[in-house]
Amino acid sequence: MSRTRVHNLNISLDGFAAGEHVTLDEPIGGAEQLFARFDGRVIHGVHHTEDPFTIDRALTSLWGQGVGAEIMGRRKFGPQSGPWGDDDWRGWWGDEPPFRTQVFVMTHHAHPPIHFDNGTSFHFIDAPPQEVLGYAKEAANGLDVRLGGGPSTIRQFLHADLVDFMHLVTVPLVLGSGVSLWEGLAGVHQRFDIEVVVAASGQVHQFWNRRTG
Amino acid sequence: MSRTRVHNLNISLDGFAAGEHVTLDEPIGGAEQLFARFDGRVIHGVHHTEDPFTIDRALTSLWGQGVGAEIMGRRKFGPQSGPWGDDDWRGWWGDEPPFRTQVFVMTHHAHPPIHFDNGTSFHFIDAPPQEVLGYAKEAANGLDVRLGGGPSTIRQFLHADLVDFMHLVTVPLVLGSGVSLWEGLAGVHQRFDIEVVVAASGQVHQFWNRRTG
Repeated sequence: MSRTRVHNLNISLDGFAAGEHVTLDEPIGGAEQLFARFDGRVIHGVHHTEDPFTIDRALTSLWGQGVGAEIMGRRKFGPQSGPWGDDDWRGWWGDEPPFRTQVFVMTHHAHPPIHFDNGTSFHFIDAPPQEVLGYAKEAANGLDVRLGGGPSTIRQFLHADLVDFMHLVTVPLVLGSGVSLWEGLAGVHQRFDIEVVVAASGQVHQFWNRRTG
Repeated sequence: MSRTRVHNLNISLDGFAAGEHVTLDEPIGGAEQLFARFDGRVIHGVHHTEDPFTIDRALTSLWGQGVGAEIMGRRKFGPQSGPWGDDDWRGWWGDEPPFRTQVFVMTHHAHPPIHFDNGTSFHFIDAPPQEVLGYAKEAANGLDVRLGGGPSTIRQFLHADLVDFMHLVTVPLVLGSGVSLWEGLAGVHQRFDIEVVVAASGQVHQFWNRRTG
């Protein structure tokens, strides 16, 4: 079985997982505090940091395990909106995007694919969630598909009941505004079994497994 | 920094991590109940099971992440004791030992190395912990070294203060006898920062990080 998985989705106490307005200076749209305790180095494995091997880092590092493709929304790829300009934007991640798989970027605006030497390729797709997921599963070749966000993209997949697993992280802060993961999803918790652990940092890790049968 | 790590060391409430007498039928020496909730499939990654992606499975699956070599005691390798006989014992794991790295088996009795097609090689070493760790670090080539057990082997390394990280799992059962991890180690907790989370299964996961400076 190939799962569709969400990892490391940091959410404020009031349910926001990003700010409203992504800019070049604010990739999380003003909600950067959500990631203040996030150690991106362990995306590449816990051995990539000399800092203590904490529960937070351990769970963050599961991000890539057994994942063969990613799906992301356009706002995760860059701050632009509307038709693509002439700039040579290749994502936020420089020459070494951490994905190292095919990545499917959902957008209504056509764009040629972008390939990196480290195995990452971005493909730009104008299609509904179910169809994009079909492409991603094919690319993943039996491995799992990671649904990389942002929150409005994940919300679409939750609406369509296409999410098998979510690792959510409740961060103890209040944002007041932003992009809500939960908007329009009243009762969604009933489709999942939810397990919770509290790390020493005060972050609450939730594992949501879709109920089967 | 290359860490020396212990993972998935299951311990009873009375401190035993194995039974006294390993036999062909009882590889954990009669303490097999310690592993009743252990899903060995996720040693190969969480995508190797279709069962729910629980906290227990997530933490178990960290076993191989960033690990480039293993050290184990002779009793983990097999039930024999004394000089090696003529049998062709190649470990408990069949043709596909899960290690896929060089493995250093500590024993006073010489034995030629054993190689498997999947990248696992067993080397048999008669040397003190510090020296064995030197060989393993060289083999790991910058990655971490896993100290694979059993408990008396880990105890030796704790005595020598050679352990950087331990993931211990307290299993809610009482064995009454067996091999204790803690014998002779009063106060060892003072050398570590300890973080604890409780999984829905009732297993308590402890992360021990050696204090630095």
